[in-house]
Amino acid sequence: MKKTIRLGILGLGRIGIMHAQNILAMPEFEVVMGADPFLTEEREKELLAMGIPACTRDPEDIFSHPDIDAVVICSTTDTHSEFIIRAARAGKDIFCEKPIDHDVGRILEAIRAVNEAKVILQVGFMHRFDRHHGALAEVLHSGQLGAVEVVKITSRDPAPPSMEYIRTSGGIFVDFMIHDFDMARFLTQSEAVGVFATGTTVCDPEIAEQGDFGSGHAIVKFANGTIAVLESTRRATFGHDQRIEALGSKGLVTDDNVYDSNIHVYNDECCYHTARIPWHFQGRYKEAYLVELQAFAKAVLERAESPVNGWDGLQAVLIAEAAARSAKSGKYELVETIEI
Amino acid sequence: MKKTIRLGILGLGRIGIMHAQNILAMPEFEVVMGADPFLTEEREKELLAMGIPACTRDPEDIFSHPDIDAVVICSTTDTHSEFIIRAARAGKDIFCEKPIDHDVGRILEAIRAVNEAKVILQVGFMHRFDRHHGALAEVLHSGQLGAVEVVKITSRDPAPPSMEYIRTSGGIFVDFMIHDFDMARFLTQSEAVGVFATGTTVCDPEIAEQGDFGSGHAIVKFANGTIAVLESTRRATFGHDQRIEALGSKGLVTDDNVYDSNIHVYNDECCYHTARIPWHFQGRYKEAYLVELQAFAKAVLERAESPVNGWDGLQAVLIAEAAARSAKSGKYELVETIEI
Amino acid sequence: MKKTIRLGILGLGRIGIMHAQNILAMPEFEVVMGADPFLTEEREKELLAMGIPACTRDPEDIFSHPDIDAVVICSTTDTHSEFIIRAARAGKDIFCEKPIDHDVGRILEAIRAVNEAKVILQVGFMHRFDRHHGALAEVLHSGQLGAVEVVKITSRDPAPPSMEYIRTSGGIFVDFMIHDFDMARFLTQSEAVGVFATGTTVCDPEIAEQGDFGSGHAIVKFANGTIAVLESTRRATFGHDQRIEALGSKGLVTDDNVYDSNIHVYNDECCYHTARIPWHFQGRYKEAYLVELQAFAKAVLERAESPVNGWDGLQAVLIAEAAARSAKSGKYELVETIEI
Amino acid sequence: MKKTIRLGILGLGRIGIMHAQNILAMPEFEVVMGADPFLTEEREKELLAMGIPACTRDPEDIFSHPDIDAVVICSTTDTHSEFIIRAARAGKDIFCEKPIDHDVGRILEAIRAVNEAKVILQVGFMHRFDRHHGALAEVLHSGQLGAVEVVKITSRDPAPPSMEYIRTSGGIFVDFMIHDFDMARFLTQSEAVGVFATGTTVCDPEIAEQGDFGSGHAIVKFANGTIAVLESTRRATFGHDQRIEALGSKGLVTDDNVYDSNIHVYNDECCYHTARIPWHFQGRYKEAYLVELQAFAKAVLERAESPVNGWDGLQAVLIAEAAARSAKSGKYELVETIEI
Repeated sequence: MKKTIRLGILGLGRIGIMHAQNILAMPEFEVVMGADPFLTEEREKELLAMGIPACTRDPEDIFSHPDIDAVVICSTTDTHSEFIIRAARAGKDIFCEKPIDHDVGRILEAIRAVNEAKVILQVGFMHRFDRHHGALAEVLHSGQLGAVEVVKITSRDPAPPSMEYIRTSGGIFVDFMIHDFDMARFLTQSEAVGVFATGTTVCDPEIAEQGDFGSGHAIVKFANGTIAVLESTRRATFGHDQRIEALGSKGLVTDDNVYDSNIHVYNDECCYHTARIPWHFQGRYKEAYLVELQAFAKAVLERAESPVNGWDGLQAVLIAEAAARSAKSGKYELVETIEI
Repeated sequence: MKKTIRLGILGLGRIGIMHAQNILAMPEFEVVMGADPFLTEEREKELLAMGIPACTRDPEDIFSHPDIDAVVICSTTDTHSEFIIRAARAGKDIFCEKPIDHDVGRILEAIRAVNEAKVILQVGFMHRFDRHHGALAEVLHSGQLGAVEVVKITSRDPAPPSMEYIRTSGGIFVDFMIHDFDMARFLTQSEAVGVFATGTTVCDPEIAEQGDFGSGHAIVKFANGTIAVLESTRRATFGHDQRIEALGSKGLVTDDNVYDSNIHVYNDECCYHTARIPWHFQGRYKEAYLVELQAFAKAVLERAESPVNGWDGLQAVLIAEAAARSAKSGKYELVETIEI
Repeated sequence: MKKTIRLGILGLGRIGIMHAQNILAMPEFEVVMGADPFLTEEREKELLAMGIPACTRDPEDIFSHPDIDAVVICSTTDTHSEFIIRAARAGKDIFCEKPIDHDVGRILEAIRAVNEAKVILQVGFMHRFDRHHGALAEVLHSGQLGAVEVVKITSRDPAPPSMEYIRTSGGIFVDFMIHDFDMARFLTQSEAVGVFATGTTVCDPEIAEQGDFGSGHAIVKFANGTIAVLESTRRATFGHDQRIEALGSKGLVTDDNVYDSNIHVYNDECCYHTARIPWHFQGRYKEAYLVELQAFAKAVLERAESPVNGWDGLQAVLIAEAAARSAKSGKYELVETIEI
Repeated sequence: MKKTIRLGILGLGRIGIMHAQNILAMPEFEVVMGADPFLTEEREKELLAMGIPACTRDPEDIFSHPDIDAVVICSTTDTHSEFIIRAARAGKDIFCEKPIDHDVGRILEAIRAVNEAKVILQVGFMHRFDRHHGALAEVLHSGQLGAVEVVKITSRDPAPPSMEYIRTSGGIFVDFMIHDFDMARFLTQSEAVGVFATGTTVCDPEIAEQGDFGSGHAIVKFANGTIAVLESTRRATFGHDQRIEALGSKGLVTDDNVYDSNIHVYNDECCYHTARIPWHFQGRYKEAYLVELQAFAKAVLERAESPVNGWDGLQAVLIAEAAARSAKSGKYELVETIEI
């Protein structure tokens, strides 16, 4: 029989609620308590009705709870590293939304706390758990296409976020392209050596005023010789454009967009694919958000290495930082090398 | 708040278990009891572990249970009409696997019992609830393609069933193409007038010895002038081939197969879609099996007309019978007209 | 070095001119003379300018011309069999537009004349020479898909022809579906045994008044057990819809429509294939019209059997006649068996 | 009536012969003479048989020929600028294979000679004349997708050329990616400002020894804010991979590969597109090679501006040079600004 993992959820905003709904439907987990500093009485009632048995404003109630085995951190980014450290010291396994932190020093502290406590940490790079991206990875890692030479990832949001969001986001490379830095590492199975990055501001002049890009582009070189060519764009009017392709010495594998349905309409104008590609990342990666938690449950129950651990979380941030530097310097920038 | 519908499940074989798993995860339903004549002690333990709170060998325990609002009939076809009548007389709403019966007289008795008791009856034509077929229907029914002129449905199983199954199946038109007779009625929104049907036996000579076809083909004429061209084949080595297209006076809509993933591989031989189309109907219509139960729950809670009622169940059988007659006579055969 | 074949062209209407243009650009042929009963002085000037060195109103000028090796017959259908007989008796090889005749007796006379004279006769079923249909045939005939079980052909014109044309066309089966009867024979490599055919008149009520169908449907059974399911429709607003698929015991091969270009556009409505499928059969089969003449040249130069001979021309008409009978009788009709 | 352009062809190697064959079949042109320094007696016989009426080893025979209106330059790259100058001074219009020269100074001399003589010069960037790329350009230039923000071009050869070729090619940016620098200018309708370029050597270690790349990657910034992301790879085992996509403020347009046929095969392994994408650029751009000559003929006959003139030829080389510098410096390099 499966052992149930008793969970505390930290942060019950949009993403926290989404994880909570998945968790409540999964047999591997039992939710013990949720914590959110912005909890109102009304909100608490909703959460109880949803099935979260207890709520608190104080995260310490979770860290000190004797019946909680693991935590799911969905709070704001500036709390991630601190919560990881507190959870680790309390001996609890950790699932943490990306990124661990914007500051490399704090990421390292968090990783060290995890390592000392021998708890499991998984970072929320859900793209790795998408069925389509996973099928591409499987083909690539099987070796049937020979050595991987070029990886290309196109990631586009349907519409830019608010300027408030842009202002505190850390910039397009740290905030948005970080998923693809992680994906490129996953696909190449190698570490990034250096990166050239730049961007365009045609998408929205206000973004430019914030010193950020509407469309970010990066060329990343990996230790094994592979090149990754990445694009993250804030505005693609047709939906959440998510495509990957990889060229190997023996062939190519592509991973196209997903459509709401398979129908095509032909009329006196042309042929349509009337179904849309999903509009939001929540829709596009709905299944992946579930599968990453199943992977976390598996790692916890088997006391196995997490499929996306602290090292992975660190590397993605290091590449993003090199990309941000490159976009300023106009030069190819080396990715910082850190030993833990 | 949603009112929960308390259910009894009749028949816990392969299809019954699949429905039970869906039902147990749906907030609209509460399972009260399951009945199966072949229940063993060991089996009962498994069902309890699965979450079915009580089991019985006697269906009467379900019909007479005061806390059961509705029944889901997944028992063998020869019991369907009798169980519908008993459930209706006990005032319980009914979801019944297709077909209601092979015998038109017994179907009529069942429908009359349902009508007299004013209970809701839904027949399990799950194809109607598939996302892709539904998207095609929506385009067609919106009128954007004008009047529907031709409907084509290709339905193929990956491999023939056992000869035991074939022998008692009622033949390819009644057993297999019945889904497509229903779908053609749904798409054309008209009643079938007559049908020409025939088949081929190349697929498996043993099937021919049973007087049945490996591949059945039918041309059905509808009252509104539309023609439906249907194929049901028992063996398609590449998977569960499920395609529909419809030509209207202003254009065409097609509904292609669904693939396990979106990836394509290109190597020195050619371009592959490495993902497969689903192998079993259970995989292909997984979502549809859930959605049809949601539709049943909605009809029950709102006391509304079932989206696939007894009349629909009857008409599909009447077309299937005309097809079977045509395959024997070599002539175009009229579909029997019955008033209820 | 290639020996040039000296040609006379009979009939210089739309289809004759198209063939003439192809022939004038082919190194295998030299045009000696063209004949057309409707020749005006002005028209003659245009033909000379086009490169046809001599013109006549009298076909006998061609049959009796000592320097003409072969004729291309593009005149009206009612002259085909007579011209074949006269050409054969004059010892000239013959390329003749489809059909040979509407009357089986006259077809037989023509075939006998050809056989006696030991000249080569090729009938203009250009679909066989299309690159895409040819690729499908190659896969099928290679045996890689096992035994052919089902062949499906969809053939649709963008818009119905004039009522004058419909009136003298011989009906949809003889005039339009004849291409697909030939293609089904080519793909199954077997002879048709019987056929059930019917049609719909929703496409245009005027067609119905002529006793013809807007959309014709046929199920043809072949001697080897294969079933062909054919549709010919007079009006498909999106273009010249030409699709074939064949199911074998080991898999399926499909042959989709051809598009003017490969581009797709994605905007806030949906994904488009902005290119169209070709509008006219002349555009769709442009290459095939050339390739069939190359095949004729090859047969003539090598004194080899024509790839689409008189027997093929006869069989397609026999199936079309059985289909026309079936559409009237409402019964499966046997295809007439004729020995030559 | 069309006026015929009398041509001299300079260089009768592989590419010269291909052009000659196209030219001989075009009504707009008449070939007067061909020149090739490597002409043998045997070769001359073949060329005469092909239809070239006269041959010479001395290019001067062409420049001084009074009946030659225009020249087609297909000789080795080091002769291009000199031949352009000599042809211009002789008052002859010029079609010249790409590039004009590797040296910017010599390109400028050639352009000035053309301008002074008021002759027409067209550079052989045939990609612009491809039907599929042209359809993409049409969508983009129509404005229906708003402002162009990102252009991506993937260009891959099936197999690397010989090391001899690589050694004198000028490197992957000047030799191979130059087509895409031109295409990016054509699509963005703007001039390149700067470029970052790099490459990978995993494709073939011998290429690395030559200081060149197996896979070159460039990010080019244009004056209007558009970014172009380009890849040229020497080895893609599945064929001549030629894809373009462009993101605008109102949507996306993609231009996929072209296949030999439209068929798909489905068997117990998966779904195949059994047709290949073309193997050689000659096959892929067969039609484009013809269309570019038609465009040249039109420009000559109408005394209109060439669609790909000397300025276009110069700009592509200037971007290629900046890319080559960037690949060495590891920095974003500005494209040299030159006024003529």
